[in-house]
Amino acid sequence: MVAEIIAVGTELLLGEILNSDSQFLARELSKLGINVYYQTVVGDNEERLTQTIKTALSRSDLIITSGGLGPTHDDITKETLAAAMGVELKLNETCLHDMEAYFARLNRPMVQVNVKQAIMPVGCIVLKNNNGTAPGGIIEKDGKIAIFLPGPPNEIVPMYQESVAPYLAAKSEEILFSKTLRIIGIGESNVEEKLSEFMQNSTNPTVAPYAKTDEVTLRITAKCKNEEEAERLIAPAEEKIRSVLGDAVYGVNDDTIFAAVCRLLKEKNMKIAFAESCTGGLLAEKLTGVPGASEVLEQSFVTYSGAAKHDLLGVNEVALSEFGAVSEPVAYEMAEGVRARSGADIGVSVTGVAGPDSDEKGNPVGLVYIGIAGKNGTTVKKFTFAGTRERIRTRACVNAYAAVREYLMAL
Amino acid sequence: MVAEIIAVGTELLLGEILNSDSQFLARELSKLGINVYYQTVVGDNEERLTQTIKTALSRSDLIITSGGLGPTHDDITKETLAAAMGVELKLNETCLHDMEAYFARLNRPMVQVNVKQAIMPVGCIVLKNNNGTAPGGIIEKDGKIAIFLPGPPNEIVPMYQESVAPYLAAKSEEILFSKTLRIIGIGESNVEEKLSEFMQNSTNPTVAPYAKTDEVTLRITAKCKNEEEAERLIAPAEEKIRSVLGDAVYGVNDDTIFAAVCRLLKEKNMKIAFAESCTGGLLAEKLTGVPGASEVLEQSFVTYSGAAKHDLLGVNEVALSEFGAVSEPVAYEMAEGVRARSGADIGVSVTGVAGPDSDEKGNPVGLVYIGIAGKNGTTVKKFTFAGTRERIRTRACVNAYAAVREYLMAL
Repeated sequence: MVAEIIAVGTELLLGEILNSDSQFLARELSKLGINVYYQTVVGDNEERLTQTIKTALSRSDLIITSGGLGPTHDDITKETLAAAMGVELKLNETCLHDMEAYFARLNRPMVQVNVKQAIMPVGCIVLKNNNGTAPGGIIEKDGKIAIFLPGPPNEIVPMYQESVAPYLAAKSEEILFSKTLRIIGIGESNVEEKLSEFMQNSTNPTVAPYAKTDEVTLRITAKCKNEEEAERLIAPAEEKIRSVLGDAVYGVNDDTIFAAVCRLLKEKNMKIAFAESCTGGLLAEKLTGVPGASEVLEQSFVTYSGAAKHDLLGVNEVALSEFGAVSEPVAYEMAEGVRARSGADIGVSVTGVAGPDSDEKGNPVGLVYIGIAGKNGTTVKKFTFAGTRERIRTRACVNAYAAVREYLMAL
Repeated sequence: MVAEIIAVGTELLLGEILNSDSQFLARELSKLGINVYYQTVVGDNEERLTQTIKTALSRSDLIITSGGLGPTHDDITKETLAAAMGVELKLNETCLHDMEAYFARLNRPMVQVNVKQAIMPVGCIVLKNNNGTAPGGIIEKDGKIAIFLPGPPNEIVPMYQESVAPYLAAKSEEILFSKTLRIIGIGESNVEEKLSEFMQNSTNPTVAPYAKTDEVTLRITAKCKNEEEAERLIAPAEEKIRSVLGDAVYGVNDDTIFAAVCRLLKEKNMKIAFAESCTGGLLAEKLTGVPGASEVLEQSFVTYSGAAKHDLLGVNEVALSEFGAVSEPVAYEMAEGVRARSGADIGVSVTGVAGPDSDEKGNPVGLVYIGIAGKNGTTVKKFTFAGTRERIRTRACVNAYAAVREYLMAL
C-alpha cells in the first residue's frame, strides 16, 4: 500500500510551527510497512487543498490529512476532502452528543461554532476524539482510503494509536518492527566505533544510531510478517549490542532516563531529594513526570538565592561568599544538606550558570556542578555545557540523572 | 513571488528525522513577503523527484530544495534538478579547490567520492559551504529560479543567511510583517465569537487565531513595503483587539505567560514562592527558565507527600487525613504555608490528581486545586482538566500562572 501525508495549515507554510504531525504519521506508517512517497504541506486554501488532495488520490492508495478540523471558518480540510471525493456532509448526532458530553465534563458551555465540527462526511468511519472537540474520520471510496485527523499533537497521537493503527494494521501484510535501545554515559562516535562493523553488516534487522541531548539511541528494525518473527530476528542483535555496551544501555523504546532512575530507586527501596539552583525545579519535575514517583520522592527544594541555600539546606555562609554559589564546596554542602533535611537516602544538588550572563564571581555561562550525597559519602562532578539557557539546564538535568544512575548501579 | 519548498530524503519519509529545514526556510521566506503555497517531502528517487520538481516549476516562481547533495550514489537532488531544467553539469574548479581547502583545515584526507560534490550545473551561482563539503547553487532559467541547499541544519542555515537571503531580498518588493497577540483566560471559540466579524473583514492586515494549551494567539499580518508601513497598518487592528479583549492580552510575539508574570512581579517589586504537589517542580522550572527570575524567586518547594506538606509548609494533619491532599482546605493551607515559610509576597499552591490513577480518596484524574495567598487573603480555584498526565500537569501550570497574573493585575 502506498500512502501520502498531507498537513494542512497556514501556520505550517509560514514556518510558525514545526510539522511534527507528519513525522509522527511517517514513522507510524513505516512501522506498518506502508510506503510513503510524498508528504505535502498546504495552507487553508480551498483551491490549493483540492488540487493537493486530487493529486494525492491519483497516485496513492491512502491519504492521511492532519489539521484544519477546528471550529472556525478557515478550517476547511474535512469539507474540501469530502467535496474532492464526492461525498456529502451531514450533521452526525453521535458526534454532537460526544461533543456536548466533552464540554459538560469540562464544565464549560458549548459554543455554537463548535457544531460545525460534528458535521461529518456521510458514511465515514467516525474517529472519536477523547482529547478535544474535533472528531476524525475515515472515508473509503472507489478503492481509495482518506483519513482526516486533527492537528494538535495531543489529539492526533492518541486518535491514531487508538483507532487508525488497528484499522491500517488489519489492511497491511508486511510490517516493520523496531526496538530502540537507549544508551547514556557514552558518546555517539564512541558507540559507532565499537559497533560500526556490526551495524554495516546488519541487513534484517538493520541497526541505526541516533543522538539526542547527551543520550544515544540505537534502533533495531526488522521487516517481517508478524511481531513474533520480529522478536526472533531482533533478539540476537540486541544481545550483541548489550554485550558490547554493557550497563550503558539503560532502557528500551520510549523509556526515559528519569523513569529508569525511578525504577532503580524503587528496586533498592530508596528515596531521593533534590536541591536545585540553576535547574530551578527541572529535576523534580522530570521525576514527578513518571507515574508512581511518589514512592521515591517526598519533597524537593529549589534554592535559587544564597539565603535559601543557607536557610533551607544549611549551606555555610562563608563558603557561599568565599567560593560563590557556583562552586564545588557549595554543590557538596547542598547535596549533604538536602539529604539531611529531607531524610532521603540520596541528596542531589545542581548549581551552575545557565546564562545568559556569567555570575557575579565571573564564572562562565555553562559551568555546572552536580553533587550526590549518599550513605557512603558525597561526590561532586564539574561540567561545562555549551548552548542556550534552556539547553544548559536540560544538559545539567540529564547529566545529573546519569550520575544518579551510575551511583545506584554501583551500590 | 510564489515559492515552493522541497525537502529531499528517504529519512524524512520514514519519519526518522524532523523536517526542521522546511520550517526554517518557510519562516525566512515569509519574512521577505515571499508566499509559500506548498511544501513537499520526497525521497531520493529520480522519477518521483523529477515529477515533484516539474510540478513545482509549473506553479511557482521559485523553488528551494534541501538535502540530497551528499557524496554517495543515492544523493541525486542536484543532478535531477539540473536535468529537469535542461542544464548541463560540469566539474567546477573553484568548488573543488574550496573542498580541498576544507579537508586540509580539518586535517583530514579528501576522499575521491567527494569530487562528485564539486560537479555543478553550468552557469549556476555557486553558494559556498563553510560548514561542510557540499556547495549549494542558484539556477536561473526561463524566468524561474531554483536554489539547491544542503540538508544538515548546521549547513543550510548559515548558507541561507549568508548567501540566499541577500539574493532574495534584492528580488522581492513586498514583505509580510506579523505581530502576534498572546491571550489567556478566555477560550478560542469565545475569542472567535467576539471578533469573528472583525477578523473576516480584515484583509490587510489579516487577523487569524491559533490555540495553544489554555492560551489563544491572534496573529495580525500586514503585507507592505517596509516595517514602518507595517507598523502603521497593524496598530489600529491591535488597538481594536485590545479594546475588545482587554486585560486578557498578556503579551506579544514570543512572550510567554511565565515571562509576563515575572515582569509583573518585578514591576511590583514582589517575590513569589511555590508549593507544588502534582506539578512536581514545573511552576518553579518555568519561572526560573526566564532570565532574571532570581529577582522574584528565592526558593520553592515540591511537597509531594502528606508528611512533606505538613513538615515544610505546616499543613494541618487533620485536614490532610480528613479532606485528603487533593482538596480545597489543603490547597489553601499550602499556599498560606509557603508564603509564611518563604517570606515571599505571594504563595502559590498546586495540588491535584495528574493520573494515571485516581487518588486514595477516589478523586478523579484531572481534578486540580490552585491556591494563591497574598496580603489580602487567600483564594483557591478548582479545575478539571482532561488528557494525559503530562497535559494535566501543563494545564495546571498554565492556569496557575493565569491566576497569579489575574491576582497581580487586580492589585
